[in-house]
Amino acid sequence: MTSIPPWKDKALFTPGPLTTSPTVKQAMLRDLGSRDTEFIGVIQDVRKRLVRLGTDSDEYTAVLVQGSGTYGIEATLSSVIPPEGKLLILINGAYGHRMLKIAVIHRIDCESLIFPEDTQPDASALESALEKDQKITHVAVVHCETTTGIINPVEVYGRIVKKYNRIFIVDAMSSFGAYPIDLKVCGIDYLVSSSNKCIEGVPGFSFVLACKDSLKATRGFARTLSLDLLAQWEGLEGDGQFRFTPPTHAILAFRQALLELELEGGVSARAERYRENYEIALSAMQAMGFKAYLDEAVRGHIITSFHYPDHPNFNFKEFYERLSDKGYVIYPGKLSHADCFRIGHIGRVDASDVTSLMAAIAKALEEMKIPIPEIVEE
Amino acid sequence: MTSIPPWKDKALFTPGPLTTSPTVKQAMLRDLGSRDTEFIGVIQDVRKRLVRLGTDSDEYTAVLVQGSGTYGIEATLSSVIPPEGKLLILINGAYGHRMLKIAVIHRIDCESLIFPEDTQPDASALESALEKDQKITHVAVVHCETTTGIINPVEVYGRIVKKYNRIFIVDAMSSFGAYPIDLKVCGIDYLVSSSNKCIEGVPGFSFVLACKDSLKATRGFARTLSLDLLAQWEGLEGDGQFRFTPPTHAILAFRQALLELELEGGVSARAERYRENYEIALSAMQAMGFKAYLDEAVRGHIITSFHYPDHPNFNFKEFYERLSDKGYVIYPGKLSHADCFRIGHIGRVDASDVTSLMAAIAKALEEMKIPIPEIVEE
Repeated sequence: MTSIPPWKDKALFTPGPLTTSPTVKQAMLRDLGSRDTEFIGVIQDVRKRLVRLGTDSDEYTAVLVQGSGTYGIEATLSSVIPPEGKLLILINGAYGHRMLKIAVIHRIDCESLIFPEDTQPDASALESALEKDQKITHVAVVHCETTTGIINPVEVYGRIVKKYNRIFIVDAMSSFGAYPIDLKVCGIDYLVSSSNKCIEGVPGFSFVLACKDSLKATRGFARTLSLDLLAQWEGLEGDGQFRFTPPTHAILAFRQALLELELEGGVSARAERYRENYEIALSAMQAMGFKAYLDEAVRGHIITSFHYPDHPNFNFKEFYERLSDKGYVIYPGKLSHADCFRIGHIGRVDASDVTSLMAAIAKALEEMKIPIPEIVEE
Repeated sequence: MTSIPPWKDKALFTPGPLTTSPTVKQAMLRDLGSRDTEFIGVIQDVRKRLVRLGTDSDEYTAVLVQGSGTYGIEATLSSVIPPEGKLLILINGAYGHRMLKIAVIHRIDCESLIFPEDTQPDASALESALEKDQKITHVAVVHCETTTGIINPVEVYGRIVKKYNRIFIVDAMSSFGAYPIDLKVCGIDYLVSSSNKCIEGVPGFSFVLACKDSLKATRGFARTLSLDLLAQWEGLEGDGQFRFTPPTHAILAFRQALLELELEGGVSARAERYRENYEIALSAMQAMGFKAYLDEAVRGHIITSFHYPDHPNFNFKEFYERLSDKGYVIYPGKLSHADCFRIGHIGRVDASDVTSLMAAIAKALEEMKIPIPEIVEE
């Protein structure tokens, strides 16, 4: 049944972990002592390069946190909000709701503005909330809601948050490396992302780009030991080491991934490749009769949600498995109100991989006896 | 100055991350989708094999937790003790103190019995504490305190904890895989270890072997989202997936490491190799005039603390760097009262590697003009 040969890995069109380059993976073929000089140098190099991807300013620093991206979000929310602080979350998808869940479990005073999943949070609603409620000290939002692929205008929100002199936290998990972001221009105090997203490393840690002055003012706020952001930073700044065992191999891979990002031409060149992946996928999918869930104006080039086709033969599980057997992994939907699946455009995949995926999708539809509209047959 | 060739990694005589086999590292040369069938199978296989290393009984399960070993400890302490519970910690080193720190930050009612770093916690003190204080619901202890290398008699403590019908938590970070441990015989409800210790995988996650009945009774106790042990277990048991992005590559390496542990002959064969490493190191070190910190009766074969030699030319930093330049990484001390360094005996190192390390130590002493007692000159 499986037509992909056993020596070949499936191409991943997911939100991550992603397909990475062979050289990124090969960087893991070493065992370094986590407290030895060479590895301390690697950590320092990675942290410096990360900061430079987000800003030219020396006011920012990078903190690496063991675990997945959610660990980085939880480290930030549970470490930087004072006991008497109040968090406002702009929500238009599952990852916004996850921040709310974290705030609740840590008993952080919290308010949320919830918008439909296909709509960007309204900037004027943010402004009036900040105007009305002086108790709000922190605002958090997701840049690219992987739930749908929608891009939220963090620069617009950041201007408002800074106008009211609050702290701004951005979950840029899926977007950092795929969209140019200037921390200072966007007024971001804490930006969180992870090793296995658009830097194209392997999973193992998250990272937080933080405004040093904001971070230094958080002493005593941490609600956990492992996810204590300030203590983690002080360790990395002090003897250069992690407080607790770091994922040495994932960090070696990440350093290589950062070098390969530079070789590719930096974030703007990578954004272009991802955009091309997106455009090829979109037009081929539309030609096959699929409809994108989001309006074009808010759609990003990281991941696209497509409605299930309106045909009785379509069954997502079967569709997924047919693609998987052909060597392509796509992603289920995560929407509360619509039946969708998702195709990611990020990772070490390019136009030719996307074209192959599209051919596989056409074949799967044919096998499932779901007709493709005449437009492609012309 | 560096005599180790650039294509060769240093041999690690540390408490971890350790030297791992080439095949364990090569298992990371793949990118698997974290929610795809193949990877779900890998997780299942790893969890099954882990349980079998600790028990023959079906009453136990394995939960993998992203992050370092400390994350696994914090996941356990912050997830399994009820709000009205009380934790008793037996402490004779830094890792016992770390558990105390975790309990404090989570405002867990806590008492500790603190013993000197060269002494096993006294079982009768444990018994009288449990007899006296009915409020104590949980007891925690470190099996091998990596601070010194001391082995604490968990089986003795376990019998007492079970006699008083309390929950028993064991930090077996450094010992699991290096000493046979039977969870049921030792009365252990939660045993915590990590991927980069004696299973000889790479860092990236910790794991908790848990008594299912104990774990099921912890609903609502978790104090974090990321480190919620019950939710993590329910995810792994439900659709077989991690709740949040798993370190796919580290898990592939770990699966390979588990296969290689079996090939070696299981835990008892591995324990034998480590013990041989220890014995070769100990007798060579003693012949060079070094004195072990612990009494022989309580010394384990995982890591050994040696006093600094009583010679004016000895300087640990220089000693460390000379060994590092020759290709050997040892470990600084972590004792509160004595100047020691440590040599680990675990990881993919054997008698010939230890013999080479000993030759390098003799050479370093010679370079530092620290005479070796005549016994070795004979």
